[in-house]
Amino acid sequence: MAEQQWRFGGNSKVIGAGAMTLRGVMDGVMKNLDENNGKSVIHLSQGDPSAFPSFHISAFVEEAVSNALRSANFNGYSCTAGLPAARSAVAEYLSKDLPYNVTSDDVFLTNGCTQALDAALTALARPGANILLPRPGYPDYEARAAFAEVRHFDLVPENDWEVDLAAVEALGDENTVAIVIINPGNPCGNVFKYEHLKKIAETARKMGILVIADEVYGHLTFGSNPFTPMGVFASIAPIITLGSLSKKWIVPGWRIGWLVINDLSNLFLATKIVDTIKVFFNIASDPVTFIQAALPEILLKTPTEFYDKIVNLFRESADKCYKLTNEIPGISCPIKPQGCMFLMIKLDLSKLEGIRDDFDFCCKLAKEESVVLVPGVGLGLKNWMRVTFAVEESYIDEAFRRTRAFCERHGKKHTQISYYVESPVFEFVYV
Amino acid sequence: MAEQQWRFGGNSKVIGAGAMTLRGVMDGVMKNLDENNGKSVIHLSQGDPSAFPSFHISAFVEEAVSNALRSANFNGYSCTAGLPAARSAVAEYLSKDLPYNVTSDDVFLTNGCTQALDAALTALARPGANILLPRPGYPDYEARAAFAEVRHFDLVPENDWEVDLAAVEALGDENTVAIVIINPGNPCGNVFKYEHLKKIAETARKMGILVIADEVYGHLTFGSNPFTPMGVFASIAPIITLGSLSKKWIVPGWRIGWLVINDLSNLFLATKIVDTIKVFFNIASDPVTFIQAALPEILLKTPTEFYDKIVNLFRESADKCYKLTNEIPGISCPIKPQGCMFLMIKLDLSKLEGIRDDFDFCCKLAKEESVVLVPGVGLGLKNWMRVTFAVEESYIDEAFRRTRAFCERHGKKHTQISYYVESPVFEFVYV
Repeated sequence: MAEQQWRFGGNSKVIGAGAMTLRGVMDGVMKNLDENNGKSVIHLSQGDPSAFPSFHISAFVEEAVSNALRSANFNGYSCTAGLPAARSAVAEYLSKDLPYNVTSDDVFLTNGCTQALDAALTALARPGANILLPRPGYPDYEARAAFAEVRHFDLVPENDWEVDLAAVEALGDENTVAIVIINPGNPCGNVFKYEHLKKIAETARKMGILVIADEVYGHLTFGSNPFTPMGVFASIAPIITLGSLSKKWIVPGWRIGWLVINDLSNLFLATKIVDTIKVFFNIASDPVTFIQAALPEILLKTPTEFYDKIVNLFRESADKCYKLTNEIPGISCPIKPQGCMFLMIKLDLSKLEGIRDDFDFCCKLAKEESVVLVPGVGLGLKNWMRVTFAVEESYIDEAFRRTRAFCERHGKKHTQISYYVESPVFEFVYV
Repeated sequence: MAEQQWRFGGNSKVIGAGAMTLRGVMDGVMKNLDENNGKSVIHLSQGDPSAFPSFHISAFVEEAVSNALRSANFNGYSCTAGLPAARSAVAEYLSKDLPYNVTSDDVFLTNGCTQALDAALTALARPGANILLPRPGYPDYEARAAFAEVRHFDLVPENDWEVDLAAVEALGDENTVAIVIINPGNPCGNVFKYEHLKKIAETARKMGILVIADEVYGHLTFGSNPFTPMGVFASIAPIITLGSLSKKWIVPGWRIGWLVINDLSNLFLATKIVDTIKVFFNIASDPVTFIQAALPEILLKTPTEFYDKIVNLFRESADKCYKLTNEIPGISCPIKPQGCMFLMIKLDLSKLEGIRDDFDFCCKLAKEESVVLVPGVGLGLKNWMRVTFAVEESYIDEAFRRTRAFCERHGKKHTQISYYVESPVFEFVYV
């Protein structure tokens, strides 16, 4: 009898995209963790302090969701784009910081910011179009982009991680449709100045493209630059704003985000972008209905003491990470973070022995010290590393104590038997 | 000064897909609702009875989710494929009905069944591949299919809505990778017999394809055919099972589903389908963490009285709908539903005047009587309509009273000024 033949197989395009995700990159680092080194694992990789008592959610917010659940009114399907009251609440919340009012029709509720960026990228990806993404950036943009082509512009460390706008203009052509900015900045912890955001809008207008403003870390700022929403400049160029409960309310597991249209000239209607976004959400899986139902309470009534406490904790821990990093030989943090949950640490290979690059550093640090950082190569910037400061203070102390020991042990003065870890396939993304 | 030129525009492929969704179809029906006709709207379109007191969720289930929320342990990000304890619970729950044990590694938690089918279709859609879908069916499969080609096989009403297996074999070729079945059946309310499911598996094996078994209505059966999971036949052909909390627990707004691999020969590993599914979930937005955390309680400990009550309610209301339908001139229900939340009603145009087809019937019924049904054209079967019986009894009485009045008013004996509603663009899907 002939052997059974099967005709199915995995979609190779999907596998290719997977190597670009942060989860894919971190799988490569974390497989080096050594359970037998006697050290507890300290994760400084993800922007999620929800498990730490200091960052526990507001009792008010928990109550709002619990009440919506217990009302038994919100166990059913939501409607496309979200519950009307929840959309209104997002509109009202965002309008506080804008010189005009966003309406509930401009708001689409999403399964976290992940789905919001998916919707924006899918809606814009007409055949042949290209999109401009920041480098360093957030790799899920690359993985999600259904675009024929992704082009990268640099954020310049020497210039407080501002956008290299001359490079943006040089990168664009007649098929460029959008530029993505992330502000407050992931991974750099920077906050763009008002004037710089205005210049980004003016550049977009000059190029005839729209701006996708990822503001998932909105209001999480503690330095000299206050947070300015990109929507302030919607009279210059049309904006799609992405946001979420995840970061400001420390509930990334609740999966509530939003995509908001800031389009004072109704360009998105004329160009069928609104239609396309609506269709996306007709097909998509909605965010949980009873959490949506709690949004008016959460967005408009959470006591401000909660945010103040969180931002103060971030200020203190960011300052501590910045200071400690610059005391360790072989690594440095040239730009003090002003927002978000991260700082970027620069690797000085000339001071280290047996360390080939950022990925190698992260793999060995995981193996020897059980401290998990994100290698810059996964974010588009080789020989830098991303560290979150959104953890309890005691974790920072211990993580930096171990990192110092690691850097001293691998410092140039020692003789060291080298071993290298193979660099992963996702490097090609940023070539 | 030259007029500002903008380069972006909506992705036309997305707009094309949108017309195929149930939401897109229903938008076309519901825009006919007339607020001024003095009648409250009765929706018999969606399978979501959660708002009715008789179908309120189990207090036990509500408590489980509330406890997980209030523990403050589950506000953070989940991990790819879901919390380990939740995956184990799904494995244990499904294994009760199988001749072997599913393991937690076989389980991927999803944002409702919508994301589960998205994952399955995306993972399998290698370039050039085609997939076999049931007609009538659930149109989101068509909208979601990233496949080069979708081919439809018939469910045969004269044969209790069984699959036309000869047609399936004739449809397939060397690029066919999978067949989708929905059991218990949406939209037909049928339940496949054990022997028929076995034949489907044998046909799949003969053709070298896998079976995607959508069992989102699993266990919601009340007729002579008990529910048999397709996974029972995994020794014949590999199976991907899709399921969800939404229907059996009456919580469609909670967005918790699962994709489960039933693959006794490890074919999915060898063909990289498992890898592809993993990558999909590395990129995807996870289901809400604290609801995942309640899954072990919900799946393994919900008092059986809850299910018994729900199934009894469905049996009674299905019988009532079946009886009432067959008493109204111009419509009939030839096959008594045995499961799911729907029955299919056949339109007899020879007995009606001024009604062109199912879409026209649904639009006019919405306009004149504020009763909302799903036109069969949106499900692949012209001149049938889908009706849910998962509503309070009083709604059924009133909806059928109005539908009877409508059919009598539009009966052949009357002279009637005709008006027609334009058929929508989604018709092309099933040509």
